[in-house]
Amino acid sequence: MSGGKLFDRVALIGLGLIGGSLGHAMKRRGIAGHVSGYARSATTRARALEIGFIDSAHETAAAAVADADLVIICTPVGALAEIAGDIEPALRKGAIVTDVGSVKVAVVRDVGPHIPDGVHFIPGHPIAGTEESGPDAGFAELFDGRWCILTPVPGADTHAVEKLTEFWTACGSNVDIMEPRHHDLVLAIVSHLPHIIAYNIVGTASDLETVTQSEVIKYSASGFRDFTRLAASDPTMWRDVCLNNREPILEMLARFSEDLTALQRAIRWGDGDVLFDLFTRTRAIRRSIIDAGQDSPMPNFGRNPTHAKPDGKDGQ
Amino acid sequence: MSGGKLFDRVALIGLGLIGGSLGHAMKRRGIAGHVSGYARSATTRARALEIGFIDSAHETAAAAVADADLVIICTPVGALAEIAGDIEPALRKGAIVTDVGSVKVAVVRDVGPHIPDGVHFIPGHPIAGTEESGPDAGFAELFDGRWCILTPVPGADTHAVEKLTEFWTACGSNVDIMEPRHHDLVLAIVSHLPHIIAYNIVGTASDLETVTQSEVIKYSASGFRDFTRLAASDPTMWRDVCLNNREPILEMLARFSEDLTALQRAIRWGDGDVLFDLFTRTRAIRRSIIDAGQDSPMPNFGRNPTHAKPDGKDGQ
Repeated sequence: MSGGKLFDRVALIGLGLIGGSLGHAMKRRGIAGHVSGYARSATTRARALEIGFIDSAHETAAAAVADADLVIICTPVGALAEIAGDIEPALRKGAIVTDVGSVKVAVVRDVGPHIPDGVHFIPGHPIAGTEESGPDAGFAELFDGRWCILTPVPGADTHAVEKLTEFWTACGSNVDIMEPRHHDLVLAIVSHLPHIIAYNIVGTASDLETVTQSEVIKYSASGFRDFTRLAASDPTMWRDVCLNNREPILEMLARFSEDLTALQRAIRWGDGDVLFDLFTRTRAIRRSIIDAGQDSPMPNFGRNPTHAKPDGKDGQ
Repeated sequence: MSGGKLFDRVALIGLGLIGGSLGHAMKRRGIAGHVSGYARSATTRARALEIGFIDSAHETAAAAVADADLVIICTPVGALAEIAGDIEPALRKGAIVTDVGSVKVAVVRDVGPHIPDGVHFIPGHPIAGTEESGPDAGFAELFDGRWCILTPVPGADTHAVEKLTEFWTACGSNVDIMEPRHHDLVLAIVSHLPHIIAYNIVGTASDLETVTQSEVIKYSASGFRDFTRLAASDPTMWRDVCLNNREPILEMLARFSEDLTALQRAIRWGDGDVLFDLFTRTRAIRRSIIDAGQDSPMPNFGRNPTHAKPDGKDGQ
């Protein structure tokens, strides 16, 4: 991974998991001369300064982006239009503006119109995260070995795209270039649908009258607990994703439900061969994900098995 | 956790993940004087002896259970009826027979009739496992801090139930007693539905024509990868679970689909409040699971973030 200073002044708008991790990643390799930061909450701004992943905190987004040669908007997608409007007059000529949103067509729609001539807008999306949020959730290694997708609009400045690619590489990522519409389709299946399904099954389990909440919790190690991690993700972020990637998500939901109905039918009619065939071919995909370095090869995601403490809390 | 010898001779029928882990757990605390083992495959029997979690391997289940005072059947539930028939004539008076199947009503139905007078049949189900299978998948700590559910039939010998409870406690488990029908309902939501949903979404993703397989794999860290672990579980075991817990699974599938349709409608009509409310209340359940010691408190299940190797394989 390369290192060294790539930008004199980088502005982080939004200081949560992604903004914080970017701050730490920049500090790790001295990628930015100065990191300025803005968050709506004064508490978050103060905490970010205290942790030290930004060098200066500002009370407005406009103040944070003044003189910045790279501006990274790290807020939920629903806030992008307003923020873009706020920073528009303060953006410096030649600056690169990017974001980290999980949808891209809506970002081009909302942010694009606010980008002045001579400023380079290159939407981006790092495929990395955890279920945690807030300024304390970030860490420098979050992007290591993950992918970052850039979706430059037609006619984007190639030098600016190269510069942003260098930046993400220095942060530990591999970089891909993609068309915004295709990005939204790919993410609908690999990220949006899994989160929606996880939220839904956790909701279903907590609404049962025949099975108690405490039974669901005690016996969750039999599978359920895996879904609760995604279902613990930031509600605002995921509401905004659902509202801003509607069509691809509805398309993937329709396919999922279609397949589930077929599976349900196989269960009802006791068609063991159909079940066995599906349960066998899905196994190969996990192997490929592990071979691609995108998940831990350890059983149970490497939740390390240790001897239980008397209270049964063994961190498994 | 207690230790010391509880049984002179324990027979393990089935030497995969659960049978192997039980063997290791018994060795860890000297719970059994002798562990005899049977598996259909000679290779598996030889490997189990070589690893050393059994003391003797036998070519028939009947030979393995001769003189055993505890018999634990650790095969997929679909094989239980045949095995119960095979061991019936060889079971010793006063012996305890149990199993580890993920369904219990079907086990009582299939095994019950083969239990001779004077033999104690107590169905059981340890709520623990990994996505791996085979004799090399087992480890002594698998049951530490997890729960094991016993579903004794009416009139079961209380001393035998106590003895089996002691056994599971010595293996590291907490023990609960439950009615078989209720067990199957609880497991349908905490275990069977999550596996079926995971298998289904991985199947849906691999059937898309607009998104390539390699895109699904590269970007899986955005959520999809979490589902692939459950979807990598043993196909035979899960086919048998679906075939033997049909009604409760269909009931839970119906509720899940009902909720998903409502969620889909909220996405289509852009009802952000409905989405935000669901996404918020599901968060509390993960917290309870972590507080109950049933999952790792670490972000990403503790998949430890490390600096990426050049090939991007960072074990995250």
